[in-house]
Amino acid sequence: MLINGKRYQTIWREGCTIKMIDQNKLPFAFEIITCQTHHDTCRAIKEMHIRGAGAIGAAAALAMAQAFLLAPHEGRHNFVRSAKAEIESTRPTAQNLFYATTKVYEAGLISTENAVVEADRLLRQDLDDTEAIAQHGEPLIPHKAHILTHCNAGWLAFVDNGSALAPIYRAHSKGKDIFVYIDETRPRSQGSRLTAWELSQNKIPSTIIPDNAAASLMANNKIDLIIVGADRIAANGDTANKIGTLGRAIVAKELGIPFYVAAPSSTFDLSCSNGHDIPIELRSPDEVLFQEGPDEDGVIRKIRVCAPDATAYNPSFDITPARYITGIITEKGIIKANDTDIRKLFAE
Amino acid sequence: MLINGKRYQTIWREGCTIKMIDQNKLPFAFEIITCQTHHDTCRAIKEMHIRGAGAIGAAAALAMAQAFLLAPHEGRHNFVRSAKAEIESTRPTAQNLFYATTKVYEAGLISTENAVVEADRLLRQDLDDTEAIAQHGEPLIPHKAHILTHCNAGWLAFVDNGSALAPIYRAHSKGKDIFVYIDETRPRSQGSRLTAWELSQNKIPSTIIPDNAAASLMANNKIDLIIVGADRIAANGDTANKIGTLGRAIVAKELGIPFYVAAPSSTFDLSCSNGHDIPIELRSPDEVLFQEGPDEDGVIRKIRVCAPDATAYNPSFDITPARYITGIITEKGIIKANDTDIRKLFAE
Repeated sequence: MLINGKRYQTIWREGCTIKMIDQNKLPFAFEIITCQTHHDTCRAIKEMHIRGAGAIGAAAALAMAQAFLLAPHEGRHNFVRSAKAEIESTRPTAQNLFYATTKVYEAGLISTENAVVEADRLLRQDLDDTEAIAQHGEPLIPHKAHILTHCNAGWLAFVDNGSALAPIYRAHSKGKDIFVYIDETRPRSQGSRLTAWELSQNKIPSTIIPDNAAASLMANNKIDLIIVGADRIAANGDTANKIGTLGRAIVAKELGIPFYVAAPSSTFDLSCSNGHDIPIELRSPDEVLFQEGPDEDGVIRKIRVCAPDATAYNPSFDITPARYITGIITEKGIIKANDTDIRKLFAE
Repeated sequence: MLINGKRYQTIWREGCTIKMIDQNKLPFAFEIITCQTHHDTCRAIKEMHIRGAGAIGAAAALAMAQAFLLAPHEGRHNFVRSAKAEIESTRPTAQNLFYATTKVYEAGLISTENAVVEADRLLRQDLDDTEAIAQHGEPLIPHKAHILTHCNAGWLAFVDNGSALAPIYRAHSKGKDIFVYIDETRPRSQGSRLTAWELSQNKIPSTIIPDNAAASLMANNKIDLIIVGADRIAANGDTANKIGTLGRAIVAKELGIPFYVAAPSSTFDLSCSNGHDIPIELRSPDEVLFQEGPDEDGVIRKIRVCAPDATAYNPSFDITPARYITGIITEKGIIKANDTDIRKLFAE
């Protein structure tokens, strides 16, 4: 993806070092973080310097490779096993994370080089998958479509391209006249901070709406379709995604608006028979009670946005039951959110 | 209502002067605004120093009385007529505002004293109505209930007591063990700023949730019932209320959770046959793009919470169709949201 004319990925490897765009600084500053060890990379995931299903997976793959690269000769096996556990404890809901650590760990049991090759392969796979999602999803978007998206499932959420935004980028580049409504996505405002920034960098017409306005726009025929990403999809199609997704899906179903999930097959977790099996990450109340951003002088300030004694309950994801999902846009094509179609996806 | 042990109303009259609690300063500072003329009072309404259905109505009534009190002998009629238009242009959606200006204006055609008496009567009526709403609504709340509310429809939104929160205060004072989940209510965060403050002042257990978390809580059986206020109710029961209400109502219906609107009959507008007839106020994008609050040193800062070039679409209210509303708690009892029940309410 181009940023001010220069080509970037969200995350990449330089030898033993992992580099990534700092998504906590965006959109107010563009900075690159350097992670020397898998501990650094874990902290970057946990503190959400990198976030989004695919990007977390890529970071986890590279962190696992880092562990193999930096493991001492003595106690090598314990070192990489404990690294795997450390990586997997950073974000409990993201399936791509567990997919990546498992793949790289298993490859690394043969040789360190093999682990690195596998991690690099997973990053290339992310690029190929998201490109294929763009191709399969683009025909769903009619000329002059108004699209609602939630959170950030753009190229910042993957190595490049994105999931939910990939078909949107492609529709735009094919000359379709489209408009994107962006849910602010409280509490961390990935919509108004990251998606708005991404779309603006790519000159795609868009505007932010408060999360509260989504239902009203749908009721007033201002939304033709909804596309969101996913953090984990169960074997029956139930989908964990950013908190707020469930509400959008229920309202869309009630009002007859197509609701699509876009995700590569690495986001599916067939060991979860349904959404109840997916663990949901609870995050700090402070994400709700405080907000950060630049004041008029550009100085980043942290302010309280609630009553002094208030507490908050802050689940980071919700589960959208499969029955509310019109279809899932995968790298292999669009499938229905049900056992049969999902089984077929993995049988091919 | 008691604030730090002292009894307050949201708004009151001292001769020709109107005083009100500054709701833009809450919960970070408790300050009283003084409005010397109806122009001052209009600005206070428009800039949301006072907000909430009943409180806006009370402010409008007192502003109209102020206009009669301060009208010049020469051009008296034009003065009060233009004052009425000015007051009615402050907030287009709030029915209580139009109800109040019309009542006081008509009374004032007889004499200025009559206008003042009528304005004072409307404030007393607000107290009586909200007290009756508390009584009718309280039995809907079971012992150990978990209640969701949106925006602020508490005593700050009226002269006292509140609409949606009135039954909650009463249930608490009768010894019921209740818990309130408070929607943050972006963009102006009346939930996390005002409702959280009100409930904390009254020692009612509560926590803030991001607006995005409401559907997830409902799906996880954490909400027994929802009570919200209203800004205008059409003849068929369609209800305008703070943006986000519609989404809560649709999800509640889908998941079988009772959804109540609490409002005095002054909120009904029988000249609107349904919700399509209710005008919806669009407010400044800046409410979405910026946030204000105290930093760690208590200095109020305004920060940007979105990408630099971003725009926002900011409708202040939405329309909840009557079919999603379980019942309306009025000062005369609980009615169904339909033409028949609403006609009966006004026939009595």
